[in-house]
Amino acid sequence: MKLAEMTWPEVELLSRDIVVVIPTGSLEQHGPHLPLFTDSILATAVSEAVEARLGEKMLLTPTLWLGASGHHLKFAGTLSAKMQAYLGAVESVVESLIPHGFSKFFIVNGHGGNSEPNGVAMRMLKEKYPNRQFGHSGYYTFAEEASRDVLTGPFKGIRHACEAEVSLMMHVRPELVRQSKLRDDGLAPEPSVVGMVHHFDEVTEEGSLGYATLATPEKGAAIFEAAVKGLVQNISAIADGYVFKGL
Amino acid sequence: MKLAEMTWPEVELLSRDIVVVIPTGSLEQHGPHLPLFTDSILATAVSEAVEARLGEKMLLTPTLWLGASGHHLKFAGTLSAKMQAYLGAVESVVESLIPHGFSKFFIVNGHGGNSEPNGVAMRMLKEKYPNRQFGHSGYYTFAEEASRDVLTGPFKGIRHACEAEVSLMMHVRPELVRQSKLRDDGLAPEPSVVGMVHHFDEVTEEGSLGYATLATPEKGAAIFEAAVKGLVQNISAIADGYVFKGL
Amino acid sequence: MKLAEMTWPEVELLSRDIVVVIPTGSLEQHGPHLPLFTDSILATAVSEAVEARLGEKMLLTPTLWLGASGHHLKFAGTLSAKMQAYLGAVESVVESLIPHGFSKFFIVNGHGGNSEPNGVAMRMLKEKYPNRQFGHSGYYTFAEEASRDVLTGPFKGIRHACEAEVSLMMHVRPELVRQSKLRDDGLAPEPSVVGMVHHFDEVTEEGSLGYATLATPEKGAAIFEAAVKGLVQNISAIADGYVFKGL
Amino acid sequence: MKLAEMTWPEVELLSRDIVVVIPTGSLEQHGPHLPLFTDSILATAVSEAVEARLGEKMLLTPTLWLGASGHHLKFAGTLSAKMQAYLGAVESVVESLIPHGFSKFFIVNGHGGNSEPNGVAMRMLKEKYPNRQFGHSGYYTFAEEASRDVLTGPFKGIRHACEAEVSLMMHVRPELVRQSKLRDDGLAPEPSVVGMVHHFDEVTEEGSLGYATLATPEKGAAIFEAAVKGLVQNISAIADGYVFKGL
Amino acid sequence: MKLAEMTWPEVELLSRDIVVVIPTGSLEQHGPHLPLFTDSILATAVSEAVEARLGEKMLLTPTLWLGASGHHLKFAGTLSAKMQAYLGAVESVVESLIPHGFSKFFIVNGHGGNSEPNGVAMRMLKEKYPNRQFGHSGYYTFAEEASRDVLTGPFKGIRHACEAEVSLMMHVRPELVRQSKLRDDGLAPEPSVVGMVHHFDEVTEEGSLGYATLATPEKGAAIFEAAVKGLVQNISAIADGYVFKGL
Amino acid sequence: MKLAEMTWPEVELLSRDIVVVIPTGSLEQHGPHLPLFTDSILATAVSEAVEARLGEKMLLTPTLWLGASGHHLKFAGTLSAKMQAYLGAVESVVESLIPHGFSKFFIVNGHGGNSEPNGVAMRMLKEKYPNRQFGHSGYYTFAEEASRDVLTGPFKGIRHACEAEVSLMMHVRPELVRQSKLRDDGLAPEPSVVGMVHHFDEVTEEGSLGYATLATPEKGAAIFEAAVKGLVQNISAIADGYVFKGL
Repeated sequence: MKLAEMTWPEVELLSRDIVVVIPTGSLEQHGPHLPLFTDSILATAVSEAVEARLGEKMLLTPTLWLGASGHHLKFAGTLSAKMQAYLGAVESVVESLIPHGFSKFFIVNGHGGNSEPNGVAMRMLKEKYPNRQFGHSGYYTFAEEASRDVLTGPFKGIRHACEAEVSLMMHVRPELVRQSKLRDDGLAPEPSVVGMVHHFDEVTEEGSLGYATLATPEKGAAIFEAAVKGLVQNISAIADGYVFKGL
Repeated sequence: MKLAEMTWPEVELLSRDIVVVIPTGSLEQHGPHLPLFTDSILATAVSEAVEARLGEKMLLTPTLWLGASGHHLKFAGTLSAKMQAYLGAVESVVESLIPHGFSKFFIVNGHGGNSEPNGVAMRMLKEKYPNRQFGHSGYYTFAEEASRDVLTGPFKGIRHACEAEVSLMMHVRPELVRQSKLRDDGLAPEPSVVGMVHHFDEVTEEGSLGYATLATPEKGAAIFEAAVKGLVQNISAIADGYVFKGL
Repeated sequence: MKLAEMTWPEVELLSRDIVVVIPTGSLEQHGPHLPLFTDSILATAVSEAVEARLGEKMLLTPTLWLGASGHHLKFAGTLSAKMQAYLGAVESVVESLIPHGFSKFFIVNGHGGNSEPNGVAMRMLKEKYPNRQFGHSGYYTFAEEASRDVLTGPFKGIRHACEAEVSLMMHVRPELVRQSKLRDDGLAPEPSVVGMVHHFDEVTEEGSLGYATLATPEKGAAIFEAAVKGLVQNISAIADGYVFKGL
Repeated sequence: MKLAEMTWPEVELLSRDIVVVIPTGSLEQHGPHLPLFTDSILATAVSEAVEARLGEKMLLTPTLWLGASGHHLKFAGTLSAKMQAYLGAVESVVESLIPHGFSKFFIVNGHGGNSEPNGVAMRMLKEKYPNRQFGHSGYYTFAEEASRDVLTGPFKGIRHACEAEVSLMMHVRPELVRQSKLRDDGLAPEPSVVGMVHHFDEVTEEGSLGYATLATPEKGAAIFEAAVKGLVQNISAIADGYVFKGL
Repeated sequence: MKLAEMTWPEVELLSRDIVVVIPTGSLEQHGPHLPLFTDSILATAVSEAVEARLGEKMLLTPTLWLGASGHHLKFAGTLSAKMQAYLGAVESVVESLIPHGFSKFFIVNGHGGNSEPNGVAMRMLKEKYPNRQFGHSGYYTFAEEASRDVLTGPFKGIRHACEAEVSLMMHVRPELVRQSKLRDDGLAPEPSVVGMVHHFDEVTEEGSLGYATLATPEKGAAIFEAAVKGLVQNISAIADGYVFKGL
Repeated sequence: MKLAEMTWPEVELLSRDIVVVIPTGSLEQHGPHLPLFTDSILATAVSEAVEARLGEKMLLTPTLWLGASGHHLKFAGTLSAKMQAYLGAVESVVESLIPHGFSKFFIVNGHGGNSEPNGVAMRMLKEKYPNRQFGHSGYYTFAEEASRDVLTGPFKGIRHACEAEVSLMMHVRPELVRQSKLRDDGLAPEPSVVGMVHHFDEVTEEGSLGYATLATPEKGAAIFEAAVKGLVQNISAIADGYVFKGL
């Protein structure tokens, strides 16, 4: 169910076992070849495809598109949420619905930089509402195997404006891919240091990270379908209920 | 220019006299006949129509759809931003762009409940950045005369899921209007008291306020065009520069 | 009843239908002819006159004189509350009284810049305490007709250190009006742009806005009386109770 | 100089060696015999008397009357500032004046419960503006010797609605003292435990603490004069400048 | 009982009359002769000695070592908690235990700069949980008489890296005292001004304040024992319960 | 270098290429067999061992022991930092040192629940100070290979009060391990759902997660040494400097 298009009496009638799904994206630089809205476009497209298959098991909210993108702010056009505003937006969505009895919330994330903030937000909510269920995951988590299978460049996962992400955009919104600007970037040898926080202007030449020139729409379609399939299974299981020890 | 679809090098090339336009909407109950996303749909549609006419004078961001809707929270499905999260989102957008030299910001608002928070946000930003320009207005401010001309019910302005708003939705997204559910509501005689803050469950029967049954797509088209025309003129004037005393 | 002068056992005995009235003012520049405390002096004087007529229907708190005056900070002497401190002060007053059963709160505002913050504060409180009643209004809202009648300059409402405000001060605290410094200011043609946030150093020469030289104590007395009369009626109606649909 | 009564051009002309004096009070229960505003009335009266003697060495702001009175909230009528609102008010006053070159700030406190928050506020400001001077003290600090001399009850200092405070009110605002309600309270033997935070409903019968029945206006006059004299000397020394080692 | 070394089932079995004791210290400059951790070392040592004597009457948490040390930040190595982080740490400790039924909390403080923040934190907690007991005190409060007896320099109390504090460190952790660097400092004549907030770089030459050269381990032992003895008595009384009037 | 034991003039002399290392732990339930302070003990022990080898390349702060442990709060004795207090503590440490020229900061984490908050904190700091270097990692990240080699139970990594963690405690503080209470727990089949946030009372019987009964001190020694070795190499590389593209 798409929350945005429903009326309040229709929402009132929904089963409270439904999983509220909140896509999170970003509006941030994706090199010279992908549009700023890439992460939001992909998180939305995947989530809508999942919703199309799950129907009354899933209540899809609009995408929280203003992501945590401080590491891209040196590139013009990036819009980054201050941390408190990011956390507050997730909390606002959840806490508007809890008084009406909704109790299962899952974030489908399309931007790596949101991952830790999503974790922090969901943990704060779980602490406040221990009897509700909260979860979050990147859509690409469900496409890891598919990515390894179809990607032909040296990186087998999803980086940033890379072979995988450009392929996905070629599949979903091909008219927004600047074909003539495709370039590989961020390929300097990695430092041997673990755990450092880097900004993209420190580690790339023009903002992308990976082998964009190898992207094809077919690769994108395969990764997309894997993500959708995995999410359908995951969200369906949450809706159906699953048992923990001691609960 | 639509920020979401641009790449960062394209943003880098823009004139810094461009007006950054931020639509603000809501996801809140609109009675049994309009979808929850009504305000966001309308603010977005108006803003996109303005952008189509203004081109390089205007940089349109995606719509901040999570509005300040505390007065509708008793109706299932409404998502309301906590005040700090709302203010923080507006600040995040503006403060991401200021370091890149953008200096003119204008909010096009589609939800009455956002009006005071928008004012507070813009004033806080003006206090912090006194040499930049900040403004905000409801799109319907520019359609007041047109509304008086075309509306046939007793209310000549825009209320909530009313003759005007339903007409606008019939013009913009007719498939989302529940024709069979149209109803007039909130018509009890107003108390003679000034300045009270009311929740919609206190003053309506099913959440709408006004004469929805009188709506037509033609009325919607006329109001829509007036709003677009007024905003084109206003934003164009900001882009072109205008002189205050003493500056 | 004046809260400041009461003892706690006397407060304990009050009817809980009483309306708690909170005046809000400012300490901000009012040109070369009016003192910084003008807004607080006027909001206090009007509120005290209302209290004198309403007796046990109204519980008057001292004036929250530290207003939201960021747009006047360029002028020496202005004291402006940070937004969180402003909102927090209003909340503190209300939330101190709610546990003792008081349930009707009304702000009488004397400074335009407080209007949006007052709205935000009252809406946050209403969201937290939906069964209590909250309202706010400028005292001048109740004097609009009287202002149109008595003002002789081109502006028929209240601006800032203008014909109306100077007249009011001549009526209430004439010794604080600098007669020899009276000047008209801020009279440059208005730009044709709607919705912009301006600082007073951008739009005036010496901080006032309007035709101060036309002020008389008689005009002030007429406006003052109209404001008091309107507020007496409004607050009395809140105290007596009034019915909404569906409540 | 009284800031409230000045115009901005007059403030502009002041010496920046002037000491900005901010009185802090409360609106809190003072037993059945003193009004809620007692602390604010006394802090204001003392500060105004100091200002009358110091003239251009001291810039007096209005009293921040909304104090930190959480320990009195169980008594109806008490208004207590949330901690952030209290700290924010002090910061707002100081940070409005610093950009105009004022650099010496001193709080004259009339309410014991404000003492720690005043210390915290002044320390936060000193950390942010290390080259400015900040201080705070209760007015009664300067009257300790006089209190020991004139008080005849067993407590030789100032408690709460006690011999000293009632005497001061008899001196300053005798019409607000409920003579027929004077009572001694809070006289139970003190527990032998150090450092506990107590609420006044835990340790008194009707909210006052001390020997109110022993109060006289003469005692009040003596204490008042001592406080004024001490503050005049202290603030004068700050205005004149005094040298630290190493600066 | 030492909380850090217990398991959760052991905590579960404790009496809820036990007093939770939270030591607060600092990591801040102590002149050229004492280590940065001095306050934390001493608060911890005293608290552990008290715990050794009180056993099941006292539940000792680890030391909150990150103190409020803004007045020492000009000296390299000082770590100072932002005020909100400091208050939040105290609240976090208390509010983790309250749901499990613990109800008596006492801070043993080792750093003067924490005193006002501790007061603010405990008062905020008392306001939120009026039926629990909260207290705080410096350990040196209980050693004032002993200090007067044993100190031979002109200051008879505890200052900063002074005769008393160096003596205590000679008693507790002699290997950390830089004997060859001992110096007297901060001995310039005090200004005659009351209530000013000073930074240590303003009032000392190398960061210490007092007669460090007079320190001996014997003086330290005497002061230490007095502090422990006083705290044992105080905390024991809180554990045993003590009666207020009206409770 | 151990910051806690240094004096400020010694800190002043340090090279600014030194890496400031901040251990983060927790005080939270670790089943019936390990003490509440386990994570803090281990993070501290590992960090001190690293410091012993790195000398002037590393400046070790005391352990921030108050961790983000909301998921353990149902077990008595757990102390969990509110999120803002946790983030504020990390920021306070870093922002105290930055004005003195320190520019490389690395958190050594001993508690999984701190991982996302550490990431959020370090990213906020990097956004504010883009020219400094920030990193964070669990100490166990450097012991993954060693864990796979020595652990004999079915889990090859570190869970919670498990084979690995008990082994480490047997190596570091054997006297704190309750040998008679060792138990395997949390062994119910995992649900097939990805990304959910669980509290430990939902997924375990007595709070531990893994095969504690298989622990030995020898396994602990091997894992400990691997963590120390890996961290020595990593921090050494940060101290020595390493080059990114484009810097």
